[in-house]
Amino acid sequence: MMTERIAVETPVLKKNDEYAAENRQWFADRSVSVVNIMSAPGAGKTTLLEKTLPMLGGRFRCAVIEGDLQTDLDAERIRKVGVRAHQINTTCCHLDARMVQGAAETFEDAMPEVLFIENIGNLVCPASYDLGEHLKVTLFSVVEGADKPKKYPKMFRMSDCVVLNKADLLPYSGVAHEELLRNVRDVSPEAEVFTVSARTGEGLDEWVAWLTKRIEALKGKS
Amino acid sequence: MMTERIAVETPVLKKNDEYAAENRQWFADRSVSVVNIMSAPGAGKTTLLEKTLPMLGGRFRCAVIEGDLQTDLDAERIRKVGVRAHQINTTCCHLDARMVQGAAETFEDAMPEVLFIENIGNLVCPASYDLGEHLKVTLFSVVEGADKPKKYPKMFRMSDCVVLNKADLLPYSGVAHEELLRNVRDVSPEAEVFTVSARTGEGLDEWVAWLTKRIEALKGKS
Repeated sequence: MMTERIAVETPVLKKNDEYAAENRQWFADRSVSVVNIMSAPGAGKTTLLEKTLPMLGGRFRCAVIEGDLQTDLDAERIRKVGVRAHQINTTCCHLDARMVQGAAETFEDAMPEVLFIENIGNLVCPASYDLGEHLKVTLFSVVEGADKPKKYPKMFRMSDCVVLNKADLLPYSGVAHEELLRNVRDVSPEAEVFTVSARTGEGLDEWVAWLTKRIEALKGKS
Repeated sequence: MMTERIAVETPVLKKNDEYAAENRQWFADRSVSVVNIMSAPGAGKTTLLEKTLPMLGGRFRCAVIEGDLQTDLDAERIRKVGVRAHQINTTCCHLDARMVQGAAETFEDAMPEVLFIENIGNLVCPASYDLGEHLKVTLFSVVEGADKPKKYPKMFRMSDCVVLNKADLLPYSGVAHEELLRNVRDVSPEAEVFTVSARTGEGLDEWVAWLTKRIEALKGKS
């Protein structure tokens, strides 16, 4: 079964890479910086965005692409903080470059400078799909356990930044923060790592400062 | 991209269904009851098994198939409570029926009466793959948020039982338990629902009583 699956997945991934290359050019032509936020379900991607967007303080024109199997609850939450959002509903377990292409085009009348993509909640599949983004961020809920970076290494390894969320639950969860940090660094030594609580706001200043700096650097290049 | 993906997935799923049918017959011939436990990463599947297996009190001969992308940490944890475990490591985002077939055969010298399958941590893909199991259990960490059953409905809908775990974190998480229960019941009205903390043991008696009853019923039929 595995060999069959690999055999059929390969052309799909190759086709995706072609769309991702198109996206990269399309984003470059319009000076859009694109941030792909990935995590397991319920790690707090939407809450992180709800808090981060206002903290960027109107410095950049932003928009969000929301990926979900069902509902447009997340896009509604983003619109409530005054940011445009396009909801993708898909039966697929990840967003692919072509879906992102279609969604990005809906913003073309007033292109954002920064486009955030909130991927489908899944710690496995989204890691295989290049979307043409500039920054990959893995969000991880600390209560999922200190061993998870070792068990799901691919997404951590490829990320520019790992945000460890729900730090407010650390004292109650029995999860060893030091061990989790060590496992993140073992798997992904190059990634910037932040420990935050998107809900309480703890640690978000450092994350937003890093993000701002990286976006400014991308804009400087474009 | 979506149509291409569906086109290539369909024969894979059809082939999987054939293996699942073989599994069902193979399990029936050997009087094995099979329980497939699915969840997002870090919801506590291994901890639930570590606590549940001793609580079954030697009533059934048990074994566990562990699915992970990497590491055999989970199989090691199961062996520590005195139960045989077979680790599957796969690059795939779910277990399929053929992988389970190969793993189940490793127990053939002393077949278990109850075979637990701990699926890959993923709230999306495992829901599409019939493994030939008798009971499907979705484990859900309450801190993932009350809205998730609506956003990832398929796995909840097809489950015989939904176990809401990490109840000990409810007071600190800001998640509304009643709303979560309502959403589970809306999506999956037939499923048995338990709220537990696998870590503290809270609520496990009711889950184990239900599981015992269902396994006894399956054995009565075989």
